[in-house]
Amino acid sequence: MITSADLQKMERVERLNLVNSLSGIKPAQLIGTRSASGSDNLAIFNSIVHIGSNPPLLGFILRPDAQYRRDTFRNIHETGYFTLNHIHRPFLEKAHYTSAKFREAESEFAACGLTPEWIQDFPAPFVQQSQVKLGMEYKQQIPIELNGTSLVIGEVAIIVLPDRIIEDQGHLNLALVDDLGISGLNTYYAIEKIARMPYARPHEIPPMEELQ
Amino acid sequence: MITSADLQKMERVERLNLVNSLSGIKPAQLIGTRSASGSDNLAIFNSIVHIGSNPPLLGFILRPDAQYRRDTFRNIHETGYFTLNHIHRPFLEKAHYTSAKFREAESEFAACGLTPEWIQDFPAPFVQQSQVKLGMEYKQQIPIELNGTSLVIGEVAIIVLPDRIIEDQGHLNLALVDDLGISGLNTYYAIEKIARMPYARPHEIPPMEELQ
Repeated sequence: MITSADLQKMERVERLNLVNSLSGIKPAQLIGTRSASGSDNLAIFNSIVHIGSNPPLLGFILRPDAQYRRDTFRNIHETGYFTLNHIHRPFLEKAHYTSAKFREAESEFAACGLTPEWIQDFPAPFVQQSQVKLGMEYKQQIPIELNGTSLVIGEVAIIVLPDRIIEDQGHLNLALVDDLGISGLNTYYAIEKIARMPYARPHEIPPMEELQ
Repeated sequence: MITSADLQKMERVERLNLVNSLSGIKPAQLIGTRSASGSDNLAIFNSIVHIGSNPPLLGFILRPDAQYRRDTFRNIHETGYFTLNHIHRPFLEKAHYTSAKFREAESEFAACGLTPEWIQDFPAPFVQQSQVKLGMEYKQQIPIELNGTSLVIGEVAIIVLPDRIIEDQGHLNLALVDDLGISGLNTYYAIEKIARMPYARPHEIPPMEELQ
């Protein structure tokens, strides 16, 4: 057992890695933005969270101390828009290296070999290599005073994805595009779809001895 | 391409499934609580998000309209504590059926064949079948006025997990305990660890032609 006192005594990097692993498997997405002066920015995030489906809202946790993420948020504030791009196995490394602290003038797209894609007149760049991409309209930043981070919320404006991953009734099979998961800060996982479970009603639950 | 206007016109369940799938692979965890009167509650959540590592904070999105989740939150308010228990492949079905709306007096532990476990004097029940479990102290509820949900934040008080999944420097290998991911509301994925990437520094990035 590890207690909060043990965590306090732990070396910083070890604590960082351990605590970042505790929430389980996390989504891996690239956030694309453009500054008011026309510089494109791309940053990997693993804290995307579903907020609600109607209106369609997604959020992410913004740290106050990460330079490249500050660029992301400054751009979102300047333009009001950003993109979310799922990361797939074939460009894992390129996506990961967007987390390096590049010089201000350098776009992570060019530095990491990823291609900006402009879809209709949407005012933020998508990642061409991504097969599941969302154009997002910024809605709100909610401060989290406990640690100086904030929850940034956007509303889904457009969705671009291949028809072949849409199953019945809107379900997506994310394994068909080799979506990645992350644990901690930099451990990557492939995913394999193993079950779709029915909506759970008490009187329809199988006998307990049949449950796995 | 699917626009926000298309989403508006979509049938409710289809929109629910689609939008819930957009955030990518999500963690699958069971939240365990006990009411002031001593009733135990267990509920599956897929919106756990890492907030920060020092102090060690995790949050989850609470919907206003889900009865079993209201029980969860009422208990957290009453006692100030809850547990987070990772879900592994061997008890996927049992964990999923905790989402059924059981009668008030019925514990999801008994109804779904899961075993409450009490660890030292921690005031909320853990799930014995889970190998990665966290005792959490409730810190704050932050309302999200855009849709009436809220972000509930807790601080990690104790961590129970097997030593064999701790790699160097605090990294956890979640595949070794068959942790599950979820997309949408009820599609489950197994995970396979494929890479641990180095901390990214601009001058250490491999030549672009070598990047995947």
